[in-house]
Amino acid sequence: MTADSAAEPLARLAAERVDHRFKGLPPDADGLTVGELAAQRRNLFTGGFTTPVLALSAERLEHNLKLMEVYADRHGLAFAPHGKTSMAPQLFHRQIEHGAWGITLAVPHQVRVARAFGIRRVFLANELVDPAALRWVAAELDSDPEFRFVCYVDSVRGVELMDAALRGTSRPVDVVVELAAGEGARTGVRTEAECAAVADAVAGTRTLRLAGVAGYEGEVPRADPERVAAWLRRLVALAVDFDKAGRFDGLDEIVVSAGGSAWFDAVADVFADIPELSLPVLRLLRSGAYVSHDDGHYRKLTPFNRVPEEGALEPAFRLWTQVVSRPTAGQAFVNAGKRDAAYDLDLPFAQVVRRDGAERPADGVSVTALSDQHAWLRTTPEADLEVGDWVGLGLSHPCTSFDKWPLIPVAEADGAVVDYVRTYF
Amino acid sequence: MTADSAAEPLARLAAERVDHRFKGLPPDADGLTVGELAAQRRNLFTGGFTTPVLALSAERLEHNLKLMEVYADRHGLAFAPHGKTSMAPQLFHRQIEHGAWGITLAVPHQVRVARAFGIRRVFLANELVDPAALRWVAAELDSDPEFRFVCYVDSVRGVELMDAALRGTSRPVDVVVELAAGEGARTGVRTEAECAAVADAVAGTRTLRLAGVAGYEGEVPRADPERVAAWLRRLVALAVDFDKAGRFDGLDEIVVSAGGSAWFDAVADVFADIPELSLPVLRLLRSGAYVSHDDGHYRKLTPFNRVPEEGALEPAFRLWTQVVSRPTAGQAFVNAGKRDAAYDLDLPFAQVVRRDGAERPADGVSVTALSDQHAWLRTTPEADLEVGDWVGLGLSHPCTSFDKWPLIPVAEADGAVVDYVRTYF
Repeated sequence: MTADSAAEPLARLAAERVDHRFKGLPPDADGLTVGELAAQRRNLFTGGFTTPVLALSAERLEHNLKLMEVYADRHGLAFAPHGKTSMAPQLFHRQIEHGAWGITLAVPHQVRVARAFGIRRVFLANELVDPAALRWVAAELDSDPEFRFVCYVDSVRGVELMDAALRGTSRPVDVVVELAAGEGARTGVRTEAECAAVADAVAGTRTLRLAGVAGYEGEVPRADPERVAAWLRRLVALAVDFDKAGRFDGLDEIVVSAGGSAWFDAVADVFADIPELSLPVLRLLRSGAYVSHDDGHYRKLTPFNRVPEEGALEPAFRLWTQVVSRPTAGQAFVNAGKRDAAYDLDLPFAQVVRRDGAERPADGVSVTALSDQHAWLRTTPEADLEVGDWVGLGLSHPCTSFDKWPLIPVAEADGAVVDYVRTYF
Repeated sequence: MTADSAAEPLARLAAERVDHRFKGLPPDADGLTVGELAAQRRNLFTGGFTTPVLALSAERLEHNLKLMEVYADRHGLAFAPHGKTSMAPQLFHRQIEHGAWGITLAVPHQVRVARAFGIRRVFLANELVDPAALRWVAAELDSDPEFRFVCYVDSVRGVELMDAALRGTSRPVDVVVELAAGEGARTGVRTEAECAAVADAVAGTRTLRLAGVAGYEGEVPRADPERVAAWLRRLVALAVDFDKAGRFDGLDEIVVSAGGSAWFDAVADVFADIPELSLPVLRLLRSGAYVSHDDGHYRKLTPFNRVPEEGALEPAFRLWTQVVSRPTAGQAFVNAGKRDAAYDLDLPFAQVVRRDGAERPADGVSVTALSDQHAWLRTTPEADLEVGDWVGLGLSHPCTSFDKWPLIPVAEADGAVVDYVRTYF
């Protein structure tokens, strides 16, 4: 459910003026509010939008939101989708309307965005040792009894720094010990013995409360289903050991959390076998990329490839660009580059060409490089491509696609733009 | 000089409220205006800023602005620095105050930003065939007699599309024929014969006016000083031929433009030898990266390495991050990643470590990878690095550094933040 405290900031988004801040929008819409422009249901291709313009598919977005709601529900998982992917409060609230427990975030700035839009439960998948940010979190906890905040700890020193910054605040901050995904992996405590030492340090403070354990299986070295499951079983065993040791006494529930976008099937399987503990367990899944999905990296990695009977995510982004140069038979250039398209995991994929209202597959057209403001296309003799054509590009990596667009048109299949998603990066 | 029409929008920037839109700013500054926060001169390290936070050096920024003013002046070059680099109207106006003729841009959205802030002269270094954007440009030209707009043409079809979109508008749009930097290079007409055909097409319209020739020497294949100079001489020869053919009759001046951030010494040399034409020549240099310069790509490429007697640019960015995890003796993680730092040309460089107010070189610390929200650091035994330390990172590539930060603190050498630069991407 959307919290009441979210209604007003979400309404303010609809009341924002369309202007130079938002690339791709129709110049003749300047001065309209975003809500007024959405109500016009302008067509993405004929309504005055300028290229490059990134569009989200309304139907695919809704499909993905629903699919992960059903998935989490079927597997008895609570869901805190990683909000760093979109940093879009409107999508945070749609995720919560679709059953999400709360929103996962990575850095305090992102928590501030979520709080500005009334998000009640935040899982910060990072250790937080910045005194200014910790004091802000403490003030938020003090001012809103319904605000639930959980973050990682992965070192005794981190616990000490947190404790020092939080002295004198009233509500303790809930923390989960982060178990690293292996040697050489990203953040997180390497061994169970060190995990116990960090938990001891937490127990020695009045400012922190040990709420559970967590980690990120996406960083398991040389990941395969067996290695990922083995690590997830280590995480569960850590929760069991901590519980047996009485470390969770006094809580209402124990948090056990994992799950990016590549292995949530393994998380579902292993978390289904969490033995009965002394308290209810919040099995918290944190996958974020599903919301838009993609045409590259996550299309290949998604667990739905292994469990097709549970459904399939649909890539919801298409970046519309225009051919501005066709200097030779083998080359073309469109007017979108690193400023507009994700390029960290794969280059964009030329999918379709539009000319005079007709759309066809981009046969013989491929993206070979990105400049800041251009994409380099290679064309084979079969390619029918002219200056002025629109080229629709598929993208790889939702996180670095969303972050290049402060306001993203959401278009229905017929091209009608029915909504605009605001992002904060 | 800053145009009068810029005073009001620039004042509006100072009146913007500090809030969740702007990462890195002090949480306790929420609700202040940007101008009020600047007036407080808060210290970057003790004033409540949260990591990660990108900072610009006030002194280095001013040094770079001044150096290129002097450079362009010394070499008789008009200067239209590429605004795509910063997309910061405040910097556009400082560039103009430092003698710039106008601002170069890449796509129509960027022109809209410039126009919203009263920029009078825009060089669009791209062909523009989008009818909605062209109609907007025509309306701007109609409504402001002082608006000077020049853009590329590189194909007969491009000319036809522009002409079709501009029919019925009053002022013709000035265009320059773009000569490609060579076979396999980026946009631009490949041969002089094709350039003449494009110029013929322009002459056949009433909506376009041929204003000169231009190109981008940064894409010369296997660039070295000789090849770059040879291409620049081709560009000058094209201007001479067009002039002899009477193609510029009726103009006040002839535009000859080139110059990115890697070869402006060659541009200065070759443009100094432009022979006398039938009209004055606007020798227009477009380098943009100089404004912040960098610690990587442009540090290596800058022409000042070849002409040290003319000065040296200074890297003006430093990204401040915090160590959130130190899981092993050889690994550490800071809380900034692809969302915060340029990563397309080089990874960031660990420069300094701050602990308890003392700053020292980041000996033994190097960045080996970026996740979305983390940087992976490798540390040797000499590295003294703990959870909580701030690590200052140098960056490579100004364009993809600016574009990750909507509001960038400008700090003096003592840490006092005296201004905030707003960007629009």
